[in-house]
Amino acid sequence: MSARPLIIDCDPGQDDAVALLLAFASAEEFDLLGVTAVAGNVPLARTESNARRIRDLAGRPDVPVYAGCSRPMVREPETAEYIHGPTGIDGADLPEPSRTAEAAHAVDFLVDALSATQEPITLATLGPLTNVALAIVKNPAICGNVREIVTMGGAMGLGNVTPAAEFNIHADPHAAHVVFEAGVPLTMIGLDVTHQAIATPPRLEAIRALGTAPAAAVCGMLDLYGEKNIEAYHHGAPMHDPCVIAYLLASELFEGRDMRVDVELGDGHCFGRTVCDLHGRTGAATNAHVLQRVDADGFFAMLTERLARLPVDPI
Amino acid sequence: MSARPLIIDCDPGQDDAVALLLAFASAEEFDLLGVTAVAGNVPLARTESNARRIRDLAGRPDVPVYAGCSRPMVREPETAEYIHGPTGIDGADLPEPSRTAEAAHAVDFLVDALSATQEPITLATLGPLTNVALAIVKNPAICGNVREIVTMGGAMGLGNVTPAAEFNIHADPHAAHVVFEAGVPLTMIGLDVTHQAIATPPRLEAIRALGTAPAAAVCGMLDLYGEKNIEAYHHGAPMHDPCVIAYLLASELFEGRDMRVDVELGDGHCFGRTVCDLHGRTGAATNAHVLQRVDADGFFAMLTERLARLPVDPI
Amino acid sequence: MSARPLIIDCDPGQDDAVALLLAFASAEEFDLLGVTAVAGNVPLARTESNARRIRDLAGRPDVPVYAGCSRPMVREPETAEYIHGPTGIDGADLPEPSRTAEAAHAVDFLVDALSATQEPITLATLGPLTNVALAIVKNPAICGNVREIVTMGGAMGLGNVTPAAEFNIHADPHAAHVVFEAGVPLTMIGLDVTHQAIATPPRLEAIRALGTAPAAAVCGMLDLYGEKNIEAYHHGAPMHDPCVIAYLLASELFEGRDMRVDVELGDGHCFGRTVCDLHGRTGAATNAHVLQRVDADGFFAMLTERLARLPVDPI
Amino acid sequence: MSARPLIIDCDPGQDDAVALLLAFASAEEFDLLGVTAVAGNVPLARTESNARRIRDLAGRPDVPVYAGCSRPMVREPETAEYIHGPTGIDGADLPEPSRTAEAAHAVDFLVDALSATQEPITLATLGPLTNVALAIVKNPAICGNVREIVTMGGAMGLGNVTPAAEFNIHADPHAAHVVFEAGVPLTMIGLDVTHQAIATPPRLEAIRALGTAPAAAVCGMLDLYGEKNIEAYHHGAPMHDPCVIAYLLASELFEGRDMRVDVELGDGHCFGRTVCDLHGRTGAATNAHVLQRVDADGFFAMLTERLARLPVDPI
Repeated sequence: MSARPLIIDCDPGQDDAVALLLAFASAEEFDLLGVTAVAGNVPLARTESNARRIRDLAGRPDVPVYAGCSRPMVREPETAEYIHGPTGIDGADLPEPSRTAEAAHAVDFLVDALSATQEPITLATLGPLTNVALAIVKNPAICGNVREIVTMGGAMGLGNVTPAAEFNIHADPHAAHVVFEAGVPLTMIGLDVTHQAIATPPRLEAIRALGTAPAAAVCGMLDLYGEKNIEAYHHGAPMHDPCVIAYLLASELFEGRDMRVDVELGDGHCFGRTVCDLHGRTGAATNAHVLQRVDADGFFAMLTERLARLPVDPI
Repeated sequence: MSARPLIIDCDPGQDDAVALLLAFASAEEFDLLGVTAVAGNVPLARTESNARRIRDLAGRPDVPVYAGCSRPMVREPETAEYIHGPTGIDGADLPEPSRTAEAAHAVDFLVDALSATQEPITLATLGPLTNVALAIVKNPAICGNVREIVTMGGAMGLGNVTPAAEFNIHADPHAAHVVFEAGVPLTMIGLDVTHQAIATPPRLEAIRALGTAPAAAVCGMLDLYGEKNIEAYHHGAPMHDPCVIAYLLASELFEGRDMRVDVELGDGHCFGRTVCDLHGRTGAATNAHVLQRVDADGFFAMLTERLARLPVDPI
Repeated sequence: MSARPLIIDCDPGQDDAVALLLAFASAEEFDLLGVTAVAGNVPLARTESNARRIRDLAGRPDVPVYAGCSRPMVREPETAEYIHGPTGIDGADLPEPSRTAEAAHAVDFLVDALSATQEPITLATLGPLTNVALAIVKNPAICGNVREIVTMGGAMGLGNVTPAAEFNIHADPHAAHVVFEAGVPLTMIGLDVTHQAIATPPRLEAIRALGTAPAAAVCGMLDLYGEKNIEAYHHGAPMHDPCVIAYLLASELFEGRDMRVDVELGDGHCFGRTVCDLHGRTGAATNAHVLQRVDADGFFAMLTERLARLPVDPI
Repeated sequence: MSARPLIIDCDPGQDDAVALLLAFASAEEFDLLGVTAVAGNVPLARTESNARRIRDLAGRPDVPVYAGCSRPMVREPETAEYIHGPTGIDGADLPEPSRTAEAAHAVDFLVDALSATQEPITLATLGPLTNVALAIVKNPAICGNVREIVTMGGAMGLGNVTPAAEFNIHADPHAAHVVFEAGVPLTMIGLDVTHQAIATPPRLEAIRALGTAPAAAVCGMLDLYGEKNIEAYHHGAPMHDPCVIAYLLASELFEGRDMRVDVELGDGHCFGRTVCDLHGRTGAATNAHVLQRVDADGFFAMLTERLARLPVDPI
């Protein structure tokens, strides 16, 4: 099997950072065309430079990084420093990035890459969907060259940022609506799944034992991120974004169902909720494969094994 | 302990019927002041006469039955014959009721009973909350004489009539909003709990073995209701409404938490959803005790034992 | 022509007070069965006692007054003391009322009167529609005995309490929705009309010249009410509620059109707006006769002439 | 005074066509940097080629034309062939355009032009605001180089496509929201104004008398467009879009006021309404100069005089 052409759209974020490392460590499976950054967990200036910091950490200067949208499509911006800390990757303790971002805007890169490609491209989205939605609205024809979108976002059950909504969708629900309605094969990985993949102390110890700089950064980030999540009600750091990369590497670790998902755009208690029609009550056609379960031990085993592949002395 | 003054508001409905039988069989615990009927599972003319049929079956001519609202407060009416059959209590095979309903309207009875009482009254609500909400809007002072409201309705997880909403709340969400905002002690028993209390074949056999007319009616109804629920996606007949009466008889069978619940009134995908703030994300004051778990075996043991108390030869 | 059976539902309010005086002065045309009060411009305790004060002023002890709902159906209460002053009828300087209100609730009176009547009854509504809507939801059959509803409320153009909504509708839009959907002949008199009927100084002088106690009270109220309206942006006191009574007395003073009117219940910038489909864009069936123009001089001539009929020395 | 750098965003449409001719005929006042097309009255393929047909008619091959967005930001597409005919410029009878559009996307042109300019650029928008909003969301910094936006859209009074909403805003209300919230000086020219500028028979005769090809095309289009508008309820062809260009040429022909304008995004009866706070009820800061009156005779005199400047034998 040849490597899968892939673009990762992200807003690092500690869990984005781990997802990026997992992808960077999987050069055989992914032809990583670029990493695009979007405002989300922290403002764009940080998500974009964080993506470059992680690139340095992974020793992958070949992967271009593009800065994208600094604000959502319609609503006012919302960030989550109360979970991620002011830098977004608190705990990683990484130096200034060695190289700049590309000059092109992330939306232009998405449009150009998808317009020019011979082989359909997979999009892994780890943040609010602003960049992808803008590309679709501006150039709808690019959808024809998207192989699939695997997105971390939403929840069939309770949300996290509100009782009804998960952060990535709530931060730009209109963009999510555009993406879910785009007619592209879409896999949704929501809180129902990611809250099953918790970085427990034994799992973190296995990573820490690798003794490499990337492993140390991962554990530093997840120690802090775990504490914040425990304060916020969880029982440890949930591996939201890494699940997206893990699904692309080993879909057999996950179970899910095709169903209709609507994004609530009304300005009430459910603003930004992904309304998942598990039991087919609406009669509407399915538009998403919604994951429901993950083999968490298998996931962490793979994560640990892949992190071990990253260079001991990067850059 | 003296008997608890109780009014049951209902829309029978097979599961309402079982709940009524459970209440009728508990004369020691409940001073049952009246049963009020509301449009819901089937139109008012049927819910009201069904309440009287069940009264006959239980041999409780002492309990007055009142007809209430035939339509919701704001939205257009919605019924659920596809689950309950045209009569609402298909499978019970009961004769015409022996006596008429009281002349007074259910809303007037609620207002008068609550205005006149020396001892606070408990309201057990098994249907859309139209009757109770109308009484509150018309005479807000009655809230001071409500001991508590225990209501079957809503869901923290998925709905049943839509992906987001449970039938009783969806059928009159504005009434639910009024009741949830009334400042009265409120226990919500939603699908999260009632889907744990399934009338499995062994449980039904234990009831059938009682050999009484009420037991036969219960099993007849739940056989059909179970089939309809299985068609609709469930694994058997969920004992929605009986949970309310069971909670009043034996709260130790249930577990729950206080939290904020908002009813979504916006006209989108979440219309009629009970938005349950399990993790305190909104910071709003709690307004409901939301049940989350039931000891289903304990519940069915109690139900069976109580049904055995009903007269073998009623009326 | 025999006198028209009439019930006036109101929330006095200076303009309600003038409307009541106009109706009390028209004993030949109206068989005034009762006046029902609702919370609106000021809380219920004031609107109800104000109705009785005006009854005393007009020397009409024969007309019963009923207190109704103290809160809206769904939304939180909203009053307008900034326009009407703390008493609602600031400027009238009236003594405590001589008699109490009836014991019955306004909703019960509406239901009973409409259920018992041989001749259809006209409803003139001058405040939020809570009382009427509750009666309809509780006993929908009463609609068959309503001859017509003439309601002050709404606007085809700009609102007053918000850019989109007029006070009476905004104060209970859900009630307005119920009434507009009730299938009863309905005439809507909105701001488009009532802002044409301004109590200018010459018009007030003509009333003041009557030299009676009612005339003095009217001028006292409208002097203050006019000032408040000028502060709020108008050019004088608009005769909102008196237009309803005037229309029933002399419909030839008004022009209007049948059209579809929808009440916006969504919780956005247009909450409580009456969306008037003047040009038939929706294709929906008409449900209201919406007045658009009034002969203001003719209106004030009639008002002055009628006020002159009230007893010089009432009670 | 030097010529004003101007970009016209449009969706021709007969009235857009007249607006473009008015702008093309005003080379002294406008440094017309480009014309961008958007889906609106008819799909993008037609609006874009229509812009080029009008360019040919005006003999202005120097002005580049760019195709932009073929769909709205969030909602599903909506067009208005029932008013404009299948071509959008029915009645003009124009040949295929002589030259192609530019390769660049309209959004990219807007971003690039606004990023590179030394002198702030004016945007005249005649259609749904998708192109402009996408440019703002993608590159918010461009707002600093916008001199002002003059937009045809919205209504303080009744809408045209629905009772509440005007077509351009209704066709992409989310884009309108972005533009109205962008903090850029904004003049809104809604139906309240444009319905004052009707192409009556005498006014059309004055144009027809010019005897030129552009004059003939204008009269051909407005004859048909007027008929469609009369069918739809108007009394003739309203000069919606030309008012924007006329305002930039001679603002003294117009009167208006600064006020707060909110775009209703809720999915109810008022979806897409521009809620104009004429009387300052919301207390929110003003964000638009809303025109209320036009000197229609002065407008048509100017239009006729300018059309006379266009070359008799274009291309």
